[in-house]
Amino acid sequence: MSSAVNFADRMEAAIQKTGTPCILGIDPHLDLLPDEFAAARDESLPRAERARAVQQFCFDLIDIAAGQVPLVKPQSALFELLGSDGVAVWEAVIARAHDADLLVIGDVKRGDIASTAAAYARAHLAGEPACDAVTVSPYLGHDGVDPFLGVCREKGAGLFLLVRTSNPSGADIQLHGDPPLAERVAEAVRSWGAELVGDCGLSSVGAVVGATHPAELRRMRALMPHTPFLLPGFGAQGAGPSDVVEAFVPGPDGLTGALVSSSRGISFAHRSEKNAGRPWKDAALDALDEMVQGVRAALASAARTA
Amino acid sequence: MSSAVNFADRMEAAIQKTGTPCILGIDPHLDLLPDEFAAARDESLPRAERARAVQQFCFDLIDIAAGQVPLVKPQSALFELLGSDGVAVWEAVIARAHDADLLVIGDVKRGDIASTAAAYARAHLAGEPACDAVTVSPYLGHDGVDPFLGVCREKGAGLFLLVRTSNPSGADIQLHGDPPLAERVAEAVRSWGAELVGDCGLSSVGAVVGATHPAELRRMRALMPHTPFLLPGFGAQGAGPSDVVEAFVPGPDGLTGALVSSSRGISFAHRSEKNAGRPWKDAALDALDEMVQGVRAALASAARTA
Repeated sequence: MSSAVNFADRMEAAIQKTGTPCILGIDPHLDLLPDEFAAARDESLPRAERARAVQQFCFDLIDIAAGQVPLVKPQSALFELLGSDGVAVWEAVIARAHDADLLVIGDVKRGDIASTAAAYARAHLAGEPACDAVTVSPYLGHDGVDPFLGVCREKGAGLFLLVRTSNPSGADIQLHGDPPLAERVAEAVRSWGAELVGDCGLSSVGAVVGATHPAELRRMRALMPHTPFLLPGFGAQGAGPSDVVEAFVPGPDGLTGALVSSSRGISFAHRSEKNAGRPWKDAALDALDEMVQGVRAALASAARTA
Repeated sequence: MSSAVNFADRMEAAIQKTGTPCILGIDPHLDLLPDEFAAARDESLPRAERARAVQQFCFDLIDIAAGQVPLVKPQSALFELLGSDGVAVWEAVIARAHDADLLVIGDVKRGDIASTAAAYARAHLAGEPACDAVTVSPYLGHDGVDPFLGVCREKGAGLFLLVRTSNPSGADIQLHGDPPLAERVAEAVRSWGAELVGDCGLSSVGAVVGATHPAELRRMRALMPHTPFLLPGFGAQGAGPSDVVEAFVPGPDGLTGALVSSSRGISFAHRSEKNAGRPWKDAALDALDEMVQGVRAALASAARTA
């Protein structure tokens, strides 16, 4: 689905079409998969057979997401766990998502020096199949990001730079210094993204900002007014609908500019007490619907207040 | 070759056996491969066929490295460029290096929140085949590193955390704040590694410190006295033998505690003017020998001065 149309515009169109900024993380943690996919965690089986079980689970998740959300975000680590067989599934999942008219953010968090970053950028944004956007680590500075920007221009792809992550100890590094490092990275992200602003007014260079830090969201938004935010940490990591509203900005069709991501809270909803005994897909569909409605209500409430 | 023997001790034994701290980076940049591997860059060929050409080149590099150096460092990005076919080659390269009695640092620069980091750690340090050590990004803080430490304990594996990278713009992020972020990360690396110090006196938790910053090496060494340093940037990135000596520490058998890595300067030595017309393997063998001798002479000179 790679296309020279600006990623931010494609993302915004998909959000408008589905009516929600909620996205589904595809994190096939082997230990948490429903019992019908138990082959995935059976180390006595050939790796390719385990990978087939993971693939079926991911395909089922894509069926659940299709038409409901604009975008899915597969997590590379869980695929790499099954080596090259897992990476083949990763590729099949990207292709399947595109067939289902879903955009794909590959959550790969890559980052390296220039010539190596160029290989990562082509591998994940210009391959066959390619992700529509990827997550990137800023630790190497701008010459590790530049090659990604080049491929974004060429392919109409997007990036989400790690700025302020959702985990407790992200602060160790990201809040170092005064002003904190995350603010310096935020300024760099705004600058890197300036040339990739689409017709929608947002850039194709986004930022990962944990929804677990609502107090910091407002500051981040002020530093990056045209930057799409990817907000992980919804659900399983503790953030709720009211925590995310600070990330959004007014757009022509209401609040926009952020993606709210949940992975385990949807995929593994069957493991919660209230869903005991229910088919896993029913539990996941209900959890996704609950998230979509909750975020919609919070945004509507915020729009009325604004 | 994963083993519960401490990685630092295995690394030190391999350095003693080969008599050099020089290591060979395996970075199969498609555009730079010798002509006999031109199939690797021919986009009209099936990807699996291109991957086979890359594999043969890497196997030849392993033959060149075997017995000459303690360790090889394949660069994941160049393999990911050919998708799951490339990752299958990555696995074959690790297995082949182990067969040749070479330790393997997988240059993957992964980093993510805890549950995801656990998947990366198992994928790369506990899979089949597994790397002996991997490079890791510290941007997510200690809860993204802890799962790697657990796998290091279990498998006798090692880590090299990015502290101060060899590229020009690493300073954007790594020198932010006062004290600079790299020093904070250095202190964290020392602390994370304290429980994984081997009989040789070095930890299995190492640091990537660019050899392009000799003035900073001394300060880094003071902050991380028991930390093995991985020094990229030798050769193609501009650092020479005299630049790396500050990274070493006195050991029972002379200066130790650092690995000096060169990739393009060895693999692609046939492209330099002085090697015009020579077989690429001869050029690579000579370049490797020149590096080994140069570093040996610089260390001997430094040991005499000390």
